[in-house]
Amino acid sequence: MITRMSELFVRTLREDPADAEVPSHRWLVRAGYIRRTAPGVYSWLPLGYKVLRNVERIIREEMDPISQEIHLPALLPREPYEATGRWEEYGANLFRLKDRRGNDYLLGPTHEEIFTLLVKDMCSSYKDLPLSLYQVQTKYRDEARPRAGLLRGREFVMKDSYSFDIDAEGLQKAYDAHRDAYIKIFNRLGFEYVIVAAMSGAMGGSASEEFLAIGENGEDTFVRSPGGYAANVEAVKTPVPEAISYEDAPAAHAEDTPDTPTIETLVAVSNDRYPRADRPWAAADTLKNLLLMIIHPDGSKEPLAIGLPGDREVDMKRLNAQLEPSEAEPFTEDDFARYSDLVKGYIGPQVLGEESATKIKFLVDPRVVSGTRWVTGANQPGRHVFDLVAGRDFTPDGTIEAAEIREGDPAPDGSGPLHLARGMEMGHIFQLGSKYAEALGLKVLDQNGKLVTVTMGSYGIGVSRAVAAVAENTSDDKGLCWPRELAPYDVQLVVAGKGDEIVTAAGDLAQRLDDLGVKVLLDDRKVTPGVKFADAELMGMPIVVVVGKGLADGVIEVRDRRSGERADVPVDEVTERILAATRS
Amino acid sequence: MITRMSELFVRTLREDPADAEVPSHRWLVRAGYIRRTAPGVYSWLPLGYKVLRNVERIIREEMDPISQEIHLPALLPREPYEATGRWEEYGANLFRLKDRRGNDYLLGPTHEEIFTLLVKDMCSSYKDLPLSLYQVQTKYRDEARPRAGLLRGREFVMKDSYSFDIDAEGLQKAYDAHRDAYIKIFNRLGFEYVIVAAMSGAMGGSASEEFLAIGENGEDTFVRSPGGYAANVEAVKTPVPEAISYEDAPAAHAEDTPDTPTIETLVAVSNDRYPRADRPWAAADTLKNLLLMIIHPDGSKEPLAIGLPGDREVDMKRLNAQLEPSEAEPFTEDDFARYSDLVKGYIGPQVLGEESATKIKFLVDPRVVSGTRWVTGANQPGRHVFDLVAGRDFTPDGTIEAAEIREGDPAPDGSGPLHLARGMEMGHIFQLGSKYAEALGLKVLDQNGKLVTVTMGSYGIGVSRAVAAVAENTSDDKGLCWPRELAPYDVQLVVAGKGDEIVTAAGDLAQRLDDLGVKVLLDDRKVTPGVKFADAELMGMPIVVVVGKGLADGVIEVRDRRSGERADVPVDEVTERILAATRS
Repeated sequence: MITRMSELFVRTLREDPADAEVPSHRWLVRAGYIRRTAPGVYSWLPLGYKVLRNVERIIREEMDPISQEIHLPALLPREPYEATGRWEEYGANLFRLKDRRGNDYLLGPTHEEIFTLLVKDMCSSYKDLPLSLYQVQTKYRDEARPRAGLLRGREFVMKDSYSFDIDAEGLQKAYDAHRDAYIKIFNRLGFEYVIVAAMSGAMGGSASEEFLAIGENGEDTFVRSPGGYAANVEAVKTPVPEAISYEDAPAAHAEDTPDTPTIETLVAVSNDRYPRADRPWAAADTLKNLLLMIIHPDGSKEPLAIGLPGDREVDMKRLNAQLEPSEAEPFTEDDFARYSDLVKGYIGPQVLGEESATKIKFLVDPRVVSGTRWVTGANQPGRHVFDLVAGRDFTPDGTIEAAEIREGDPAPDGSGPLHLARGMEMGHIFQLGSKYAEALGLKVLDQNGKLVTVTMGSYGIGVSRAVAAVAENTSDDKGLCWPRELAPYDVQLVVAGKGDEIVTAAGDLAQRLDDLGVKVLLDDRKVTPGVKFADAELMGMPIVVVVGKGLADGVIEVRDRRSGERADVPVDEVTERILAATRS
Repeated sequence: MITRMSELFVRTLREDPADAEVPSHRWLVRAGYIRRTAPGVYSWLPLGYKVLRNVERIIREEMDPISQEIHLPALLPREPYEATGRWEEYGANLFRLKDRRGNDYLLGPTHEEIFTLLVKDMCSSYKDLPLSLYQVQTKYRDEARPRAGLLRGREFVMKDSYSFDIDAEGLQKAYDAHRDAYIKIFNRLGFEYVIVAAMSGAMGGSASEEFLAIGENGEDTFVRSPGGYAANVEAVKTPVPEAISYEDAPAAHAEDTPDTPTIETLVAVSNDRYPRADRPWAAADTLKNLLLMIIHPDGSKEPLAIGLPGDREVDMKRLNAQLEPSEAEPFTEDDFARYSDLVKGYIGPQVLGEESATKIKFLVDPRVVSGTRWVTGANQPGRHVFDLVAGRDFTPDGTIEAAEIREGDPAPDGSGPLHLARGMEMGHIFQLGSKYAEALGLKVLDQNGKLVTVTMGSYGIGVSRAVAAVAENTSDDKGLCWPRELAPYDVQLVVAGKGDEIVTAAGDLAQRLDDLGVKVLLDDRKVTPGVKFADAELMGMPIVVVVGKGLADGVIEVRDRRSGERADVPVDEVTERILAATRS
């Protein structure tokens, strides 16, 4: 069926939409693929929906060999999410509602609970396992800052799958099968991606990797080393130095340090007045103690002190990834007022820790190992303490990965310096383990007739987000530029002239191509060829065919949207040429 | 890809689920096609989801030639529904929720508003019309009594389309195109249906027809006449008799009518004590006046009196269809107490009507034409009035279609007596007209450069409901029995024996069929052939193939699920035979 542009429900825009922050959003709206209905909620127009369906088709083709497709509701009862604690943990991100009888429901942000209960309902023996189920389904998250069009929406399409196994070995197999399928899917989608180690966050569980679309507009930062290490920055573990003997370390001594509002000034004053014998004090020798308030999902609060070398900032995303589902906020003046032992600006480890007067939990950067010597607050206005030795003069309650990762930091596996880049999470594979099965009582009889808890994996792909990610990765300064498998049409056939001969030749060519299974968008509008060319570039079909003046010389122009290459092809060869191009 | 029953996520049940009221629900649950997640909210298991996707495919194949597919969100902002009044009109049927900022949202029950706004955003000229758009999408209605499995759910899949035209002629064309496409769709779905005239209800607009699946478990009652009239019972118009001259009618006279608690006793007492000259009084000569309270969507109330012949009951569904989006409830004792002019049991037209003392609106059955003579309440305890003549002694405020339709009633178009039957609404086509376009300001420039309001049509098909309707229509006492186009698999291939020869022959046959594009479900489980046969009948694939003992004699059994016919087919002919059967 040939689609005529004159009848197609599309309107291209010459101007960028006001709220477009990233290229994918800009081009998808301008080319008439999507339209915003509410913040973070989009309508798919004919062209956009074709791309979405192409993505879904690719995903199904690669998932079907390893998993069975089912379809769960989006409107879900509260109880299972209550049982796993996620009704609260999701906080304001969850859309909650009541039905006419006053019962609580939610719009599913992800479906671990429901899959678990379904399998519990249907399976009772190890013979029913291994099992892998998936769905392509609409999900909801009430994002605090919906942004970037489809990249972070509040209603979006996901492929989520779940594996159910009797033991860890089975789970590993299911995980590997998903990893392989995801590689095939992302290769076919045709954007640049990287697989990185990830935190599992609110999902619980252990091993977990993310598939990130590489791109400067991504919300995630990841690291790579020359030796092949790759991780989401939240998941990077700081290499822990060896403990140092402190036998020869001088005793700690508090000193006046006037006019040292910054680490820089503190280092200068320290070297000036209280020089270290072996080498000058550096920013990395100062111990910065930050006070934060942890907000738990139930709304309760808990103070936390973090000690880290003065040359590093706290990375709130990394910190919050460790605290999930709780979140940290800066200490307020009111918070400080409640702890009279804290001298703001001069807080030292001596008043921190669960055993201290304040009882505030004190976690330090993993670099703060036993024997390290620090310049830090003396808990007196205008004074710092020098040569305070970890393990001798203070003992933190533990360590935490809260410090920023910097370009050139060593990879934790010794594979070289880390390089930082940006990416957008497109897929996530998790080894959940028994968290959900335990919370919801999913057990089966094993070969010895003993009830054992099932071990689970959870695997997601952002389907609507993939449309944006591909657009983001493949668009250029003229507009969209679809990979062949995703394009709504193979060919945009431009009728560049009004003459009967041109119109007839274009119609005939469209019909021949359509008969051969080539998907043709025929631009038959009564506008100038210039407008049609610009729209063809904006809309991004892989091949643009121009039937126009060349026809008098027996040629039709065939353009490759991506490379921009143009060729005048003799009329009787053009069908073959286009057919070959759609298959290349 | 051959599916092995030993790996398929299915568990058949020997017992009916406790809440199953209708066959489709019973069989779909027992055969492992669906599972309930919450009241009126279902999960689709692998077999069920394949059927749903087949229905969607058929619908898309027939819709694509006449309409363009798009996809709108289910999470919708309040404002457009506020503008059309439906935010309130939907009452408790609408799922409403707030986002984290406190903004109001709803889960879309139908999408007229959003389509209208989208077209307003994209179209500005008559040249952009005619336009027809459709989607296959998940919808939500908080039904008061979700029931019958998929037949009346709270989350369900619909195909909804909308047409946009510059004039009534265009709308009629779009309506006719949809009607034709629906006929093709329902013919392919393979259940018995009827097209009936319908009320347009809360949707507004004028011409409207429903496609009903015929079946005793349907929620709708429809009528048909020998001459071809067909209507939903709500839409039947009572033929209005000619007015009668009342010149010779006796004057009205109130009389004592003791011990007449029913119409029957009233008629007896009337004929006994106050006989009519020309013929005996009949129940149809009594005028029953019912008091109701109309509850409007905003919660406000308004009394309504309905006068109808005593031989007819009020049909609340018919009445409410006239009042939509408001609903009528019986008058309570408290309501009566508020109107001291009303003498319960003896209410007559004299105290009814907007001009009367009570000011209660008084609508009568269309049979109450001018000149008709009635026995009715005298507004005094124990007394009725005789020979009260419509148009002479009382003038109602209008008429209303509230009386029940009875088997044998005349068709309004004179095409003979009506026959009543039950059906389930599967599709609905409406000529909406300008209601939504006006409320939301959808205007385009016409050929003269003048702004005109667009005229719209709205067309729906219950997609998930169709799965149940087909199951309802085609199942038998053994289980499901799918039409070929909808079946999850073409063939259920039963391995009926443990011998290597049997297992190998079944596997080889499955592979040959799969290579030929036949969808095979191979029952390779370690259970008895009896269990497999029963499951095959329950699950309902069109062809059941049994590889078993016959193999020793060189034959394989091929069964037709619907007819029950069995044939022993020589092994070397069996592939051809099955292939032919899948194409028949």
